[in-house]
Amino acid sequence: MKYFIAAGLSMFASAILADPLPSWSETDTKQAIINFVERVTDPTSPDYVTAEDRVAVFDNDGTLWSEQPVYFQLAYALYSLEKKAASDPSILTSDTLRAAASGDVETVIESGSEGLLEVIAVSHSGMTVNNFQDDVVNWLENARHSTTGKRYTDMVYQPMQELLRYLRDEDFQTYIVSGGGVDFMRAFSKEAYNIPNQQVIGSTGPAEYSDGEIIKLAGDVFINDKEGKPLGISSRIGKRPIFASGNSDGDFAMLEYTTAGPGPSFGMLLHHTDGEREFAYDREGHIGVLNKGLDESGERGWVIIDMASDWKQVWP
Amino acid sequence: MKYFIAAGLSMFASAILADPLPSWSETDTKQAIINFVERVTDPTSPDYVTAEDRVAVFDNDGTLWSEQPVYFQLAYALYSLEKKAASDPSILTSDTLRAAASGDVETVIESGSEGLLEVIAVSHSGMTVNNFQDDVVNWLENARHSTTGKRYTDMVYQPMQELLRYLRDEDFQTYIVSGGGVDFMRAFSKEAYNIPNQQVIGSTGPAEYSDGEIIKLAGDVFINDKEGKPLGISSRIGKRPIFASGNSDGDFAMLEYTTAGPGPSFGMLLHHTDGEREFAYDREGHIGVLNKGLDESGERGWVIIDMASDWKQVWP
Repeated sequence: MKYFIAAGLSMFASAILADPLPSWSETDTKQAIINFVERVTDPTSPDYVTAEDRVAVFDNDGTLWSEQPVYFQLAYALYSLEKKAASDPSILTSDTLRAAASGDVETVIESGSEGLLEVIAVSHSGMTVNNFQDDVVNWLENARHSTTGKRYTDMVYQPMQELLRYLRDEDFQTYIVSGGGVDFMRAFSKEAYNIPNQQVIGSTGPAEYSDGEIIKLAGDVFINDKEGKPLGISSRIGKRPIFASGNSDGDFAMLEYTTAGPGPSFGMLLHHTDGEREFAYDREGHIGVLNKGLDESGERGWVIIDMASDWKQVWP
Repeated sequence: MKYFIAAGLSMFASAILADPLPSWSETDTKQAIINFVERVTDPTSPDYVTAEDRVAVFDNDGTLWSEQPVYFQLAYALYSLEKKAASDPSILTSDTLRAAASGDVETVIESGSEGLLEVIAVSHSGMTVNNFQDDVVNWLENARHSTTGKRYTDMVYQPMQELLRYLRDEDFQTYIVSGGGVDFMRAFSKEAYNIPNQQVIGSTGPAEYSDGEIIKLAGDVFINDKEGKPLGISSRIGKRPIFASGNSDGDFAMLEYTTAGPGPSFGMLLHHTDGEREFAYDREGHIGVLNKGLDESGERGWVIIDMASDWKQVWP
């Protein structure tokens, strides 16, 4: 009996192992990922890396889920600000905040990172982390994307879900390392990506501890983007990753840091080339700009995912 | 053949399970720990907690290793400062720094937390994290404790090593949550406690990213002590722990946060009662002061470890 169960399990395992990345087209990109994973997990390989050091880091916006026409967290911030302002209009102390509370997202984006941070600060403060996350979960359940009409959590990339699972099956630890707010992302990272809170690294605002609870405050934020990504990785993980995946120049330093180590490493950028199925953008705009990454990926040996040709499917 | 191996493994497992905490005396303290662990790991118990949420947090200085007559990190800082000042005396810009570089530890301690931070800032900056940790490892190998003559890493508590292992065997994630510097602790936490870098949370100074490396800078430090501990736990782990262990009033907020949750939780303080084998101290002094914890542990249901009577052995 045991023999038959074992044989059955083994056949089942082989069926899965046959193609860990079914939504990826049979291109060089897919082969490069699989080659790298096999190289670092094969104990007889000179590039073998022990499971404990198989740290893989992923940007979130534009890498694990979509980010157009605006970061999804900004859509939440506008919703939240409007709700807060309805009961206390005095919180709208600037033109940017007034624009945000009226849903004028263009004005907020044009106000640049300073305006964005102001909107985040006011909309994301003054409540406990738990209450904040309950509100995010509720919003994610009810809100719909402006052009696709989908739930935001239905705009996660199917091929990246498979990649996360494949890496974990090969004993990698998969981390999110994103400019998004850490408390915001933790409201859905477990359900959306099977990534637990302790493997989510993001931007962090000030907070205070009071009587058993953590209260979110407005104020200076540690921005986990650009050079902040290697700093966030160093302070939180304390190890140089061996696998890094991003999509914009905000991920450049993270890929550089990852691939600067003495051992084997893998850097990968998602190029949004698919205006039919998703959004086509790269060198211009306000969100997800990718210049340096495209210019230097060749000499640095980083892999570029061409969404249009490398992915059979985009969203689940 | 397989049967015999399985039977052998099973007997081996039983032998270990018979007493997971052999260096702990058969007292109420030991029984309280075991009762709690059994309660939250038994799937039929109403207090069952899934493995993913079995987060256990431990202070380091005075909880996992000794901290008298001065924090061991301060001994390293004095050593490092003296070495740096030998090649560049101009770094000694204050009386506290000059005292530190000449080994006058009393003056440094009397200068309070401001002086301590100044000594740490100057001695722990201006190099990469990797180079800093290499220097710490080298120091730990060669330095000896002023009164015991032991290596500092030989002054870890044997009973706490057993507790960490026991909790991990029961699928807890064991974290260090300490006021010590995160880069300092990561230089030895894996070897000393089998705790990997990503589960070490500590005070963090500023840093900059440059060309693939992380450089430690002098400047404002996030102090992962007192109310900073729940904040560090929230931002890094993002979950309320269910088990917290400390030894001073610097751990009070961490225990309060841990035991404020709606589910089962365990708070424990090590009372340094053993002047014969270790150091006896509690309500007075500069290091490891414990007042509020002793006063309120009863009403809060926290367990007090009486080192003299609860531990058969202190160091390995």
